[in-house]
Amino acid sequence: MSTIIAQEQSDLHLQQIMSDLDNNALYDARGHLQGLHPAEIALLLSSLPIDYRNQIWGIIAPEMMGSVLVILQGEVRTGLIEQATAQNLIDATSELDINDLAVLVGDFPAFVREKVLEKKGDSRLETALTYDGRTAAGVMDINVLTIQADLTVEAVLQFLREQPKIAANMDSLVVVDEDNKYRGMVHLPTLLTSDIHIVVSSIMELDKAIALNMAVADVALLFEQRDILSAAVIDEHGVVKGRVTIDDVLDIVRDEAEHVVLSSAGLDEEHDLFSPVLVSARRRAVWLGVNLFTAFLASWVIGLFEATIAEIVALAVLMPIVASMGGIAGSQTLTLVIRGLALHQISPSNSMKFLGKEIAIGAVNGVVWSIVVATLASLWFSSWGLGLMLGGAMIINLCCASLAGVLIPLFLQKKGIDPALAGGVLLTTVTDVIGFMSFLGLATIFLTN
Amino acid sequence: MSTIIAQEQSDLHLQQIMSDLDNNALYDARGHLQGLHPAEIALLLSSLPIDYRNQIWGIIAPEMMGSVLVILQGEVRTGLIEQATAQNLIDATSELDINDLAVLVGDFPAFVREKVLEKKGDSRLETALTYDGRTAAGVMDINVLTIQADLTVEAVLQFLREQPKIAANMDSLVVVDEDNKYRGMVHLPTLLTSDIHIVVSSIMELDKAIALNMAVADVALLFEQRDILSAAVIDEHGVVKGRVTIDDVLDIVRDEAEHVVLSSAGLDEEHDLFSPVLVSARRRAVWLGVNLFTAFLASWVIGLFEATIAEIVALAVLMPIVASMGGIAGSQTLTLVIRGLALHQISPSNSMKFLGKEIAIGAVNGVVWSIVVATLASLWFSSWGLGLMLGGAMIINLCCASLAGVLIPLFLQKKGIDPALAGGVLLTTVTDVIGFMSFLGLATIFLTN
Repeated sequence: MSTIIAQEQSDLHLQQIMSDLDNNALYDARGHLQGLHPAEIALLLSSLPIDYRNQIWGIIAPEMMGSVLVILQGEVRTGLIEQATAQNLIDATSELDINDLAVLVGDFPAFVREKVLEKKGDSRLETALTYDGRTAAGVMDINVLTIQADLTVEAVLQFLREQPKIAANMDSLVVVDEDNKYRGMVHLPTLLTSDIHIVVSSIMELDKAIALNMAVADVALLFEQRDILSAAVIDEHGVVKGRVTIDDVLDIVRDEAEHVVLSSAGLDEEHDLFSPVLVSARRRAVWLGVNLFTAFLASWVIGLFEATIAEIVALAVLMPIVASMGGIAGSQTLTLVIRGLALHQISPSNSMKFLGKEIAIGAVNGVVWSIVVATLASLWFSSWGLGLMLGGAMIINLCCASLAGVLIPLFLQKKGIDPALAGGVLLTTVTDVIGFMSFLGLATIFLTN
Repeated sequence: MSTIIAQEQSDLHLQQIMSDLDNNALYDARGHLQGLHPAEIALLLSSLPIDYRNQIWGIIAPEMMGSVLVILQGEVRTGLIEQATAQNLIDATSELDINDLAVLVGDFPAFVREKVLEKKGDSRLETALTYDGRTAAGVMDINVLTIQADLTVEAVLQFLREQPKIAANMDSLVVVDEDNKYRGMVHLPTLLTSDIHIVVSSIMELDKAIALNMAVADVALLFEQRDILSAAVIDEHGVVKGRVTIDDVLDIVRDEAEHVVLSSAGLDEEHDLFSPVLVSARRRAVWLGVNLFTAFLASWVIGLFEATIAEIVALAVLMPIVASMGGIAGSQTLTLVIRGLALHQISPSNSMKFLGKEIAIGAVNGVVWSIVVATLASLWFSSWGLGLMLGGAMIINLCCASLAGVLIPLFLQKKGIDPALAGGVLLTTVTDVIGFMSFLGLATIFLTN
């Protein structure tokens, strides 16, 4: 009956726990943790500065630790694993199913991992550990209930009733032939509303199955396009190896989206808001260094025109405008192309038509805004010549920005480099260099003696 | 049995259709469309330049049009609705269920919408049209199967078998009392494995229900945290009004992610890659105009130091480095904060701790890179004074960038402004202004006569 106002509630938990710890009231903190869902504890842990986090981790029951670790990601997870004793980790895994284990034990220290594998004694777990996390195999559920196509609905219902426990996210059964090769899917609602004497083959859907090595991004697109809740995963012989469910797909989509946003700022792996200052600083320094290279390149271009600037100082005042407007226009195009590539909307067949359209937009906005900018600059410095140079440079830079905004991500994708990571910095290099060069170059030709 | 390599396949469709149209082979194009899933046709249409798109739209059967329009978004959808005749639209809606209709008819011309509403004669549809699309009410499924808590499993199974058709994405039944107030959920797998003589109340889960006005972002977080496939939506009296399913949540997460990426480039609503040049140009011009204002502000700051630059031209060469490095460092912090706010990881309780950490990172990287930059600049211009000023300005700007990267999104969120939209441009204003002012100001104080 109760409803949730998520944000306020999670802040309330955080506030209580932080004040408990500030007052050394570990007993109260433990009380506040009771009744929280593992997902709430996971959110709480990832929102806590590391010293608070480790204290809370110390008072969480081992049987809760496993579910919490499965939900957490990246550094927050590995940091907490480091803080736990080997025995705690082994206890933490005892309640987990084989899929959660496969997600988790890869992050465990080697000797703990081996103990867990030994204890479970399930060869599927060792196989699962070898799968690539960026493919369907890496995200699939290896517990899959299969049924034969020639069973009747009645027999299937009977079979299900004999199962000890069916996963709550089970929406359909995978239909196979006698060699365990994929035939189709039977959705539970269909099963529930069909005549019990009918055979499975006549009510199954011929949904497409997914190959083990299908990229997770493509898996996600398939689910979104087809509005399906689960799909069978098959090997190259058509043998059913597992199933992907939509809750995994939700995680994929969220991760992909985060990847795009974070990597555009060179932050791909920073999953811990409170990682130590020096760790964060070193990681971000790489990106600053890359940018420094492009900034020096732009400065070098400006340096070529020192004599011109010495003669007309107003050029130095106005030159950032050209570079900045080019950067904005280019990043608009770049953003659309990166998104279009991810959604498969842009491909070799239509990219030239799109390029044409983007350059036309660049030209239109170049002309419009260069008139505004040229007028303002001319009035400011009482020089129509200066305004003309500024306007001309802006038109050149906005057209080049559109061109670069389309071609850079296409080129990067072809070379197998992530456009979301490298696209922005390359684009800025182009728009800075061309912006400064066109403005200062035009001024050198037409305005200096 | 077949597997899919999504990208190549969608490009193949696109290539075939474009070449059919280039050759005026409409009959072949129609052949190529046959057998495509509505989602594939939707992707194809949104990947086609507008003239091609309208030709294809003309040869799609009306009964297919409805499903395709439901999948499409924004301008692509409204553009195609404009191209269709009123009769086509009415025919297109005849096969759609009430939820799809609610999504679609809002975009229809008023007189067509009224005709459709009249034809359906379902008052729930008119109610659904009044719901806010950014709340649970706006995305929920209004067809919901409810059962009473005192029924036996056997009675429920019998009841289901009598239903004409159950939605394929039905994973659970909503349990209500005699006033249709929410009691809990029964998952189909539980129903299938329970003793048939047991009553529903003893197997139902007490999952939390969602309020009609819960924001879609919070709905998505709830689904992700709880790994649920559907949830009941209730009004303020606890009466069940519908249910939200995970496939809707997948769309929410995708839309949210797109919103963050697109709005950072001022592109929020640009859903059509091939919208007309002037339409796109006008929309993007707004963002360029906003940026122009900040660019002029930066130029004005530089202009304050014209005399200093006239004396030391090297300042003009080096000054973009300070602004650029500040912009990069600030955007790293900004990106983390926007993401942290969206995931509810950052809240008033921990924001000051986070701010402290970010400023420390800014200081560390400021010191490290200012040493590099100062050395390079000193060697380039044979002036240790110049290098010192550059290094000092960089430390100041990187610390201010961290501060702004945390405070700007927190401030914007408090004011109800979307940080993803306005954060970047405000941050750049700060880092440009402080970058130029600190470098040129230090130089004016210490290097000029």
